[in-house]
Amino acid sequence: MNSFGQKLRFSTFGESHGKAIGCILDGVPAGLDINEEYIQSELDRRKPGKSEFETARKEADEVEILSGVFEDKSTGTPIAMVIYNTNQKSKDYSNIKDVFRPGHADFTYFHKYGIRDYRGGGRSSARETAARVAAGAIAKLMLAELDIEVFSGISEIAGIKSNVYDYEAAKKSIIYALDSKVEQTQKDAILKAKNEHDSVGGVSRVLVKGVPAGLGQPLYYKMDAVLADAMMGINAVKAVEIGDGILSASMLGSQNNDEIRASGFESNHAGGILGGISNGDDIVMNVYFKPTPSIFKEQHTVTTTNEEVDFALKGRHDPCVAIRGTVVCEAMTALVIADMLLLNMGSNMSGVSKYYK
Amino acid sequence: MNSFGQKLRFSTFGESHGKAIGCILDGVPAGLDINEEYIQSELDRRKPGKSEFETARKEADEVEILSGVFEDKSTGTPIAMVIYNTNQKSKDYSNIKDVFRPGHADFTYFHKYGIRDYRGGGRSSARETAARVAAGAIAKLMLAELDIEVFSGISEIAGIKSNVYDYEAAKKSIIYALDSKVEQTQKDAILKAKNEHDSVGGVSRVLVKGVPAGLGQPLYYKMDAVLADAMMGINAVKAVEIGDGILSASMLGSQNNDEIRASGFESNHAGGILGGISNGDDIVMNVYFKPTPSIFKEQHTVTTTNEEVDFALKGRHDPCVAIRGTVVCEAMTALVIADMLLLNMGSNMSGVSKYYK
Amino acid sequence: MNSFGQKLRFSTFGESHGKAIGCILDGVPAGLDINEEYIQSELDRRKPGKSEFETARKEADEVEILSGVFEDKSTGTPIAMVIYNTNQKSKDYSNIKDVFRPGHADFTYFHKYGIRDYRGGGRSSARETAARVAAGAIAKLMLAELDIEVFSGISEIAGIKSNVYDYEAAKKSIIYALDSKVEQTQKDAILKAKNEHDSVGGVSRVLVKGVPAGLGQPLYYKMDAVLADAMMGINAVKAVEIGDGILSASMLGSQNNDEIRASGFESNHAGGILGGISNGDDIVMNVYFKPTPSIFKEQHTVTTTNEEVDFALKGRHDPCVAIRGTVVCEAMTALVIADMLLLNMGSNMSGVSKYYK
Amino acid sequence: MNSFGQKLRFSTFGESHGKAIGCILDGVPAGLDINEEYIQSELDRRKPGKSEFETARKEADEVEILSGVFEDKSTGTPIAMVIYNTNQKSKDYSNIKDVFRPGHADFTYFHKYGIRDYRGGGRSSARETAARVAAGAIAKLMLAELDIEVFSGISEIAGIKSNVYDYEAAKKSIIYALDSKVEQTQKDAILKAKNEHDSVGGVSRVLVKGVPAGLGQPLYYKMDAVLADAMMGINAVKAVEIGDGILSASMLGSQNNDEIRASGFESNHAGGILGGISNGDDIVMNVYFKPTPSIFKEQHTVTTTNEEVDFALKGRHDPCVAIRGTVVCEAMTALVIADMLLLNMGSNMSGVSKYYK
Repeated sequence: MNSFGQKLRFSTFGESHGKAIGCILDGVPAGLDINEEYIQSELDRRKPGKSEFETARKEADEVEILSGVFEDKSTGTPIAMVIYNTNQKSKDYSNIKDVFRPGHADFTYFHKYGIRDYRGGGRSSARETAARVAAGAIAKLMLAELDIEVFSGISEIAGIKSNVYDYEAAKKSIIYALDSKVEQTQKDAILKAKNEHDSVGGVSRVLVKGVPAGLGQPLYYKMDAVLADAMMGINAVKAVEIGDGILSASMLGSQNNDEIRASGFESNHAGGILGGISNGDDIVMNVYFKPTPSIFKEQHTVTTTNEEVDFALKGRHDPCVAIRGTVVCEAMTALVIADMLLLNMGSNMSGVSKYYK
Repeated sequence: MNSFGQKLRFSTFGESHGKAIGCILDGVPAGLDINEEYIQSELDRRKPGKSEFETARKEADEVEILSGVFEDKSTGTPIAMVIYNTNQKSKDYSNIKDVFRPGHADFTYFHKYGIRDYRGGGRSSARETAARVAAGAIAKLMLAELDIEVFSGISEIAGIKSNVYDYEAAKKSIIYALDSKVEQTQKDAILKAKNEHDSVGGVSRVLVKGVPAGLGQPLYYKMDAVLADAMMGINAVKAVEIGDGILSASMLGSQNNDEIRASGFESNHAGGILGGISNGDDIVMNVYFKPTPSIFKEQHTVTTTNEEVDFALKGRHDPCVAIRGTVVCEAMTALVIADMLLLNMGSNMSGVSKYYK
Repeated sequence: MNSFGQKLRFSTFGESHGKAIGCILDGVPAGLDINEEYIQSELDRRKPGKSEFETARKEADEVEILSGVFEDKSTGTPIAMVIYNTNQKSKDYSNIKDVFRPGHADFTYFHKYGIRDYRGGGRSSARETAARVAAGAIAKLMLAELDIEVFSGISEIAGIKSNVYDYEAAKKSIIYALDSKVEQTQKDAILKAKNEHDSVGGVSRVLVKGVPAGLGQPLYYKMDAVLADAMMGINAVKAVEIGDGILSASMLGSQNNDEIRASGFESNHAGGILGGISNGDDIVMNVYFKPTPSIFKEQHTVTTTNEEVDFALKGRHDPCVAIRGTVVCEAMTALVIADMLLLNMGSNMSGVSKYYK
Repeated sequence: MNSFGQKLRFSTFGESHGKAIGCILDGVPAGLDINEEYIQSELDRRKPGKSEFETARKEADEVEILSGVFEDKSTGTPIAMVIYNTNQKSKDYSNIKDVFRPGHADFTYFHKYGIRDYRGGGRSSARETAARVAAGAIAKLMLAELDIEVFSGISEIAGIKSNVYDYEAAKKSIIYALDSKVEQTQKDAILKAKNEHDSVGGVSRVLVKGVPAGLGQPLYYKMDAVLADAMMGINAVKAVEIGDGILSASMLGSQNNDEIRASGFESNHAGGILGGISNGDDIVMNVYFKPTPSIFKEQHTVTTTNEEVDFALKGRHDPCVAIRGTVVCEAMTALVIADMLLLNMGSNMSGVSKYYK
């Protein structure tokens, strides 16, 4: 249950305070050019400590490929990648050892497993998402060969919404803001919350260009369902929307339907997916992140023996997890699209015959 | 790719205009009382043609159990259920034979499979969801033995929102409305759209009571991620929200965190799930349905040979798919929770030892 | 756990004394010609009651396709097939109601599920294999389009071995004997056992011609491992051998290695598989069936309350299950090869690029 | 396709000449005592270079646990283990760079992936099985808590068969011989072949004691079928036999049936499995290994461009892979049994209710 994907499948391991995190990426076609520098550059985009808008905690996040690549090409065998934890110093955990942190998974892990790994987020820490980004980088290399590209950016922070979606601007923004005009206001909101020992939520918007029509496996591995699974599984995500999803629920059919002309669709309310299958238009998705639960205000909570305490967390945490989270959204999206590309091969007999004859 | 679930797994078959639809439900523990009347009563809740707010098309939707039940108890073997299509008369399809209907999956199926099954919705028709409801009814029987219950209702139609969530009221409402005070306004909106040959969207709200803490398999079979997958995979669903999901994105951490007392959580912004694992509180979810794409206004579209035509659909369709859709949301939720219950067995060694010793 | 295969996946349902048996075959590429008569003809090869060498019990074994086929072509959606049980008359089960039959699965099912379905073999009956043969027939149709053919025959009965493997002779033999010269002796052995209320074992030999090199997914979905899984899962099979498997264990490397020339391998001790991947040569396999456990001699056994009794079974059973079993071996082999063909698509990037560009 | 198991699932990575091999073991119940020394001791049993009967190649095979264990207990999260390759010195591969070695997988990998990793066995090398042994050691720890134990030994080498199966003797024997009386003859056969630059085959016999009745998931995850899959997937294995499998095919039903008394079965021809489910008796299995294909005699072969050459391999290889292979058989068996134990939880409703109430 620590694996994701069908034909392109990755399995991750590791805890925030253990020796290492990493993953095995299985199903990468042989002969793909594996550019290690590119993988590292993707990890660097997610890496903490780059600015005042992120946690001050530093992790080198240097990835090492252990297998599956020979002479800079994938061999078809599993690609194992490991990232050693350099910042897992034996710090003092007495503050949180027996106390459940509100909004965290330590409460639920304890009830599920009966084990208390008190060293921090453990397996549920967003640190694990570094492994997803490494795997996603390889998926992106594969997509690039097919002229498919995944973009993302922050469309909303603390309720401050973007009016435009400029993915090139997002690439240059330290908070991946899609709208340069509201970026400063968004930054101010983050810092205000941070200074008040609080945190803010945000929304990531994901765009995929170049996806051919026909990807997605109905009825229970639909493109939109699997994207929803992938996004909702990212730490702190609480809602996922395809195309104009939420707005659609208050629209009329005649407004929401995307009419068709010989040159393509006249609009894209559907977000590029019909009946769970890509329609050839851009795939568009919004991913809603709750505010970081790790705040430094005093809160009501209980201990592992259910005694009530008032508790104020110490340490370093992102004031807005959506920022680094958007890089994870991109990675997971790339992995889903790449998996769907592989799964789609064999959908019809003419394709099978052409492949083998 | 027509199967869903891990330990409790169902596989469906059938098209709207074929001989039959149905499913195999695999993994039901032996010895469960199987009440066929209850299964049929659940199907009746989803059945079309019950009121003017639904399609006038009639289907008997009578389920027959072919296997897996002996003397009214499950035997542990696969439970196959079949529902014969009684309304698949050889009608005249010439109207739609070569024309893609805007907002439908016929465009994407054609691009994926290279086959044109012009007889209507085919596999992508919401008719298939009857099989999900039949399977979900058995999951509900299993949950009932563990004092877990799934509720749902319509919280919004055409932008008209409920102010209260009264699940008992929803049970009695012909449109499953959660708020009796806005129900008439919601009904009026449906009929207005219907009279104008148009359709409306809506939102289903799902509640699960009695789920023990600890269900959900991290990190890639999380409770919320699998629920998102299950809901987004339902016809016409375009967004899924856990707890206060969308609102959370504009909240502060100090507002959104659910503080804890010895007697339980002080609030439930999280919707009963932390880190992908149930926390023992109610599970709450909102599911956003787009308006029915099948409308009777003239629209721009193209033929299978990409010729532009103006097209007005004929026939009978729901003016608001969310209504019958909420019954499907319940069924899929029940199947997810039941699967998670079975998967969770074996999470810790003391449970395993107790089971076998 | 009632499903088999990855991309081509079938799920079966049904008990020997229930209403029906059947299956859903998922993953068949769209556009395959589905010849219903051919499917029925394969079922007829497995059907009981054709001769004195089989059980006298008669089953019509008429298959009905419920979905997934339109105008005699597969549509890419699940193909559901049902075979109603016509011979499940409410006979008198008092003889076996509480008694475990030696060599049968009723003992283990009772211990697993805590349920006693006393009506006969139930789910563990070889009757279920009719569904495999129906699914396998469609796999064979798919293989035929790629010039791959599966053959089989009986190479040994009651220790009487074939000296030649003549698959054309097997097609014409009522016991599917591979060696016409020993066929009569094999028949005599069957009838002798039958007359003495006993049964005999046998060996099925399977041959696949035309498999391209490169099929099989290492390291845990190898061609040979999956074939072993598929064969061992057939009722009464107790051993599986690839190529010269058993003999190989007593050979020298220099004898067992298949040397290679430009025109191909000089021998085929490997049975067409190296490292779990097909090498382009014929795939050869031997499948060992135990004698039918259902015999009519008195045997020691116990009741469901563990009381010792002496018990003589009544009824009608095959004196040699290997005969009809060889048809099931063919079907399962065809399903495995077809699945491997689909899975192999995407093994290398040049194939992926060619497919999409 | 580099993963094995359902609820207890391991995924391996690594090539013989890459940086490292290893695995992720997912699904280990939390709270299991993880004894690292025991895991290492199991690896030491498989380690090459212990005697003249094995390859002279030395590998330290030191395992490092990267995750999933805290304070010597499993936490329920994935257990990643890595074994760095210490003997992967950049040796001269010019001898084999373009030549297919008879009996090896290099031919089939090249045809599947279109990539030539000429550095030796690569992914298909038996070196990967060290990861299986590490995972299997943890499975054995879990089985031990439930009083289940897996044994194995060599029952036959070069056609020289054991007359007794003494598993305690096998533990002490450098070639894991089950019969001390024929051990020297078996050793002589190995050395004779080795001196003649040849190799020999052998048979491993596996025994599992203490398995409760009821394990195995019919009909497509049967205990015997999954064991066959697991064994056949081990390098060089060409046949698998449950109980008296091969002999059964020439027996009468009255000879082969295991009759039952109140105290248990009177014999165990079935090898402890009926209908794919364990019957509570010992599980017995024979695994047939072909002779090592890596021999040092000149053989016919072709190059990657299909040019005929005569080729004599150089290097160091096991003269009999069955010896170290038997340790891998044990590991895979332990993993299968442990998986089946976890999967079986939830088979009946009384067990589910007891677990949750």
